[in-house]
Amino acid sequence: MLRTHTCGELTLSDLNKEVTLTGWVQKSRDLGGMTFIDVRDRYGITQLTFNSDDNAELRAQARELGREYVIKVTGKVIERSSKNLKMPTGEVEIKVSKLEILNSAKLPPFMIEDETDGGDDLRMKYRYLDLRRNPVRNNLVLRHKMAQEVRKYLDGMDFIEVETPVLIKSTPEGARDFVVPSRMNPGEFYALPQSPQTFKQLLMVSGFDRYFQIVKCFRDEDLRADRQPEFTQIDCEMSFIEQEDILNVFEGLIRQLFKNVKGIDLAGVPRMLYSDAMRLYGSDKPDTRFAMQFVELKNTTLPETKAPLLWRGGGEAIFPVFDTAELVIGINAKGCAEYTRKQLDELTDFIKRPQIGATGLIYCRHNTDGTLKSSVDKFYTEEDLKKWSAAFNSEPGDLMLIMAGSADKVRKQLSELRLEMGNRLGLRDKNKFSPLWVLDFPLLEWDEESQRYHAMHHPFTSPKPEDIALLDTNPGDVRANAYDMVINGTEIGGGSIRIHDRALQALMFKHLGFSTEEAQKQFGFLMDAFEFGAPPHGGIAFGFDRLVSIFAGLDSIRDVIAFPKNNSGRDVMIDSPSTIAEEQMKELKIRTTN
Amino acid sequence: MLRTHTCGELTLSDLNKEVTLTGWVQKSRDLGGMTFIDVRDRYGITQLTFNSDDNAELRAQARELGREYVIKVTGKVIERSSKNLKMPTGEVEIKVSKLEILNSAKLPPFMIEDETDGGDDLRMKYRYLDLRRNPVRNNLVLRHKMAQEVRKYLDGMDFIEVETPVLIKSTPEGARDFVVPSRMNPGEFYALPQSPQTFKQLLMVSGFDRYFQIVKCFRDEDLRADRQPEFTQIDCEMSFIEQEDILNVFEGLIRQLFKNVKGIDLAGVPRMLYSDAMRLYGSDKPDTRFAMQFVELKNTTLPETKAPLLWRGGGEAIFPVFDTAELVIGINAKGCAEYTRKQLDELTDFIKRPQIGATGLIYCRHNTDGTLKSSVDKFYTEEDLKKWSAAFNSEPGDLMLIMAGSADKVRKQLSELRLEMGNRLGLRDKNKFSPLWVLDFPLLEWDEESQRYHAMHHPFTSPKPEDIALLDTNPGDVRANAYDMVINGTEIGGGSIRIHDRALQALMFKHLGFSTEEAQKQFGFLMDAFEFGAPPHGGIAFGFDRLVSIFAGLDSIRDVIAFPKNNSGRDVMIDSPSTIAEEQMKELKIRTTN
Repeated sequence: MLRTHTCGELTLSDLNKEVTLTGWVQKSRDLGGMTFIDVRDRYGITQLTFNSDDNAELRAQARELGREYVIKVTGKVIERSSKNLKMPTGEVEIKVSKLEILNSAKLPPFMIEDETDGGDDLRMKYRYLDLRRNPVRNNLVLRHKMAQEVRKYLDGMDFIEVETPVLIKSTPEGARDFVVPSRMNPGEFYALPQSPQTFKQLLMVSGFDRYFQIVKCFRDEDLRADRQPEFTQIDCEMSFIEQEDILNVFEGLIRQLFKNVKGIDLAGVPRMLYSDAMRLYGSDKPDTRFAMQFVELKNTTLPETKAPLLWRGGGEAIFPVFDTAELVIGINAKGCAEYTRKQLDELTDFIKRPQIGATGLIYCRHNTDGTLKSSVDKFYTEEDLKKWSAAFNSEPGDLMLIMAGSADKVRKQLSELRLEMGNRLGLRDKNKFSPLWVLDFPLLEWDEESQRYHAMHHPFTSPKPEDIALLDTNPGDVRANAYDMVINGTEIGGGSIRIHDRALQALMFKHLGFSTEEAQKQFGFLMDAFEFGAPPHGGIAFGFDRLVSIFAGLDSIRDVIAFPKNNSGRDVMIDSPSTIAEEQMKELKIRTTN
Repeated sequence: MLRTHTCGELTLSDLNKEVTLTGWVQKSRDLGGMTFIDVRDRYGITQLTFNSDDNAELRAQARELGREYVIKVTGKVIERSSKNLKMPTGEVEIKVSKLEILNSAKLPPFMIEDETDGGDDLRMKYRYLDLRRNPVRNNLVLRHKMAQEVRKYLDGMDFIEVETPVLIKSTPEGARDFVVPSRMNPGEFYALPQSPQTFKQLLMVSGFDRYFQIVKCFRDEDLRADRQPEFTQIDCEMSFIEQEDILNVFEGLIRQLFKNVKGIDLAGVPRMLYSDAMRLYGSDKPDTRFAMQFVELKNTTLPETKAPLLWRGGGEAIFPVFDTAELVIGINAKGCAEYTRKQLDELTDFIKRPQIGATGLIYCRHNTDGTLKSSVDKFYTEEDLKKWSAAFNSEPGDLMLIMAGSADKVRKQLSELRLEMGNRLGLRDKNKFSPLWVLDFPLLEWDEESQRYHAMHHPFTSPKPEDIALLDTNPGDVRANAYDMVINGTEIGGGSIRIHDRALQALMFKHLGFSTEEAQKQFGFLMDAFEFGAPPHGGIAFGFDRLVSIFAGLDSIRDVIAFPKNNSGRDVMIDSPSTIAEEQMKELKIRTTN
C-alpha cells in the first residue's frame, strides 16, 4: 500500500506515530509561515501542516499544490492547537516531512464540495468528479450497504441467488423491449429483460423453492422525470406459499433494512385494500405519513342505501357542478381556515394545471369562531354546511377543500391536492417512514387506446379463485392475489401469487386478447413447464433504485445510480449511444433507416 | 406456508409429530398392502407410507400418483422399520392421513435422477426439469454460496459494490460487442459491456478507493466449446496500491473461498514469472498439480553461453530434425518406460492432430535395467542418451518424450502433450487444487493478421516503468504490471496495475495504432478524467462461472449457469433469439438485410 493509514482514522491515540497518507488536496490555506492542507480520501479528511521554519523548501512545495492534486505525504501525528471536534480526525494534524505529488489536477469545472456550484449537465458530463462529493458517494455507500443487508436477510431465509439471462426473447406484452441483433442468427434478435419473471417462475418449477436476485432490468420507454432505461430490482420468488407468507417474509426484509441500515424500528407494515386506498386516498400508493383521508359528500356509483348524499335544503337542483357530478369529495386541511384568497387561488391553479386537469375547487372555511363560510354560500344554507362539517369532522380553524366530477378522475385530482396540502403543511417529512401493503389489486384494467383489457400486474398473476367466474361477465371486477408495498406514497415493490396451472394460464392469455398460437409462440415454454409438476408459487420485486432513494431521503433515483442516463437515454459522460462502424452493421446484417 | 416442515429436516427427534410436507413424487413402490412414496423438495427426501389396512381409499389414491406429481401430505412422523442411514431423514417416515394433489405432471422426457438418461439437447430444451436434478441444483447452490462469500470477504475489506451501466458505448478494441439500437437516438447504438473496465477506473478517479462488482459481461464471439455470450465476472479495483497489494488481497479471497466453501486450507498461492511459465510449461496457465517441467536439450534463441546444447558425438549434422530446430525440448514421463508401441503411437497421433499440429515425437526409454533406448538410436550414441538422461533427471522406468521445432510452436505442442500425460498418469485430480500467480506478462503481442501489436491484457495496462524505453525499440519485450491467477491449468482471473497518467495512456494508444482522434473519440472521457487527479490504481477480474466450475469439479461452465446458451448462442428452451415485429424495427429505425 502507498499509505499506512487512511485520511479518516487518525486520532489522539496515534500521537507521534510516523504515518503515510494519500489522497486529494481538498483545500489549502496559508497562515504566517505555515501552510495548512486538508487531504481527503473516501474515509475522511486529515489536516497537514508545513512550516517554513522547519523546512522552507517543503513548505514552498506545499504552496504549489492545487485543489484535487493527488499527493502522498509522510509525517508525524501531532495534537492540533485549535481542534475541530466536528470531525473524527479533528484533534490531530500531520506535521509533514515528505511530500510526493502522485498526480496533478486541472481545476475541476465545479467545486468538489457538499454543496456544489455545478449545474446538472456539467455534473453529469464530469460524473467522475461529481462522485467525489460526499453526498453523492454516501448515496452509493448506502446502496452498497442495503444490497448487502438484503442478501444477508434473504440468504438467512434460505433464498438462493440465481443469475438469470440478460439476452432473452422479445415479447410484445408490457413495455417496449430493448433488442440485440444476433450475428450468429441473422435476422433474429435477443431482448433485454424487463424483469426475470418467467425465469424465476421456471426456477420454482425446478424446485428451487426460494429464489432471489438483485438484477438489472431494462425498459425502452420515453423517460419521464425519474425513469432510467436500466434499473435494478430485488427480484424474489417462493414456492408452497400463500399471499400471507410473502407479506410476512418481505415485511421482515423491510423492517430489517430499516433497523440495520437506518437504526429505525418499524412497528410493522399496515395493510390496506386497493379499493380502500382508492376510496380514501384516490391512489393505489397513498402517502400514509399523514391522514387527510377523503370524505365523500355525494357518491352516485354506490347503491342508494350506501351512498352519501350531498345535504342541502330543497330537493331541486341548485348548484349544477355538484348536482351533475358522479362524486363530490373533499379533504379537511387542518388549521388552514385562515388561508388567504391568494393561497386559495394558488390551490385552484394547482389543480387546474394540465397535468391534473381539474375544473375547479370549492372550499368551506370552518372559522375559529365556529361559523362556516363556503365559496358556494349562495347555493347552500348554514344547515347544509353544518352537515358538511360533520361529515368532514372539521373543527374550528379547518379548511374543507371539495372537488366534484366523475369518480375516477376526481379522486386522482384530489389525491394530487392532498399531497400538495401535505407538502404545504409539512406533513411529508423525509425522515419519517410510513410503509404500507396495498392488497387485492384488480386483475385487469381497461385500456381505452387498444380497447381491451390489459393485465394490471402481468399476465402471470393469479385471479382470486372466488372471482374467476367473473372473468366472463365482469372482467374489471376480478381481484388478483396481487400486492404492492408502498413507502411514503411511492410504490417500492409489487408482486402476486402466480398462476401455476396451464389451463388457467391459457384462459388468462385468451382474456388478454392473445390467440392460442400467439400465446404458445411467446410463452409456450412456461405453459409447457406448468404441465410437468409446477408448485403453487408467488413472489415480489422491489425497485432497488427507488428504495435506496427513499432511504437516502432523495426525490430522484439518479443520485443513487453511479452512472445514470439523462432523459434522452444518453450517458453524456461517455457520449453513448453512438454510431457504430458500417462493418459492424454488415456483420450483424442490419441497416439503419433514418 | 403450505407445509410445516421441508422434506429434508425430519429426524427421530420429531417422532409422533403431526406434520405437513409438500414436494414432488420422486418414486413410488408397492409392498403387500402398503405403498411407499418418496417425496422430494430442495431440502431432501422423506418417505411416506400409505397402508390399506388403515385407509384403503387413501392408499388407492396414493397408488395413482405419477412421478413428479406435486403433492401436499399430512401425517404422523414414525420410526422406520428398515432404516436408511445414508440420508438425514432415513430413520423416519410419515404415516399419511391426508393427501392433496397440488398439481399433476406429465411424464418427464428424461429421468429426474442424479444420473439421467437425457441427452444434452433434451436437457437444455427442458432445462427447468434438468435443474430439478440434484447435481445441477447443487452447482447453483454452490454458486450462490461462493457469491455470498466473495461479497462477505470484499465487504469486510472495505470494498464497495457499485453497479456500472449495461448500456454503454461500442469500442472497436477487443472482442466484438453486442449492440443495442437506441430508439430515442435513431441511428445510434449502445453496446453491452465486455467488462466494466473504464467505469471501475473512473470510480478510482472518483475516490471510491476499493470497488467490486459481481457483474454480467458480454462478448459476441464465435462460441468455442465452453464459452458463453454472457458470463459473470468478479470485478475489482483498488487505489493507492502496488501489485503486491493486489496479489495479497486476492490471494486472501481465494484462500477464504476454499476454506469457507470447500473446507480446504490452501497453504498460499505460489508465484511464477510469465517467462518461466512459458519456458517450463509452454503455457501462461500451467497446471501445477503436477511437475513434469520442460527440459531443453537445445535452445538457439538464447545467447550461446546460456543455451543448452544437444549432446552428441560428432560436430557434423546427423539428425536433421534436431539439427535444424530452434528448440529441442521434452518432458520426463515417470514410470512410462514400458509404454507399448501402440501407446507411443497414440501419443504421436495425439500431437499430430490438426489442433496441435506437431510433426513428430521422439522418445527415449530409461529401461528398468538402466539402459537407454531411443527412437533415434541410429543418430545418437549411448553416450549422447546418457547426457539426455542427466538433463531430464530420468530414472530407470521413465520415458523421455522429446519434440523439436520453432520455439513458440513446439512449447505449445509439448504443453498439450504434458497435459495429456498428466491425464494418463492420473495427475490431474479434480479434488486437488493448485492455484498460481503468473506475473510480468508482456504488455503487447504481435498480431499476424492485422500486422500490428495488440494489448495482451487491455490498453489500460501499465508497462513496467523500467521497460517504457523499450516501447520504441522492442515493443514485444516490454513487460506489463499484469498478473493472472491460474488454478489447475485454467486462468480464473487476471488484472494489472493501470495507467493513471494521460500522457502515458496516449502513448499506449499510439503504439496500439490509434490515431489521436480515434483515441479521443473512444476513450477521451477516461483520458480527460486522468487530468483531474487520478490516483495510482489497479485491479483484477475473476471469471466467476469458471471459478465455480473448478470448485464444482466440472469441465464445463455450462452446468454452473442456470439457463445457458448453446454453441450457436441460442437458448433452446425459450427459443431465443427470435424474429421481432416489423413495427418494432420501424420504431428502432433499423432493417435486417439478410
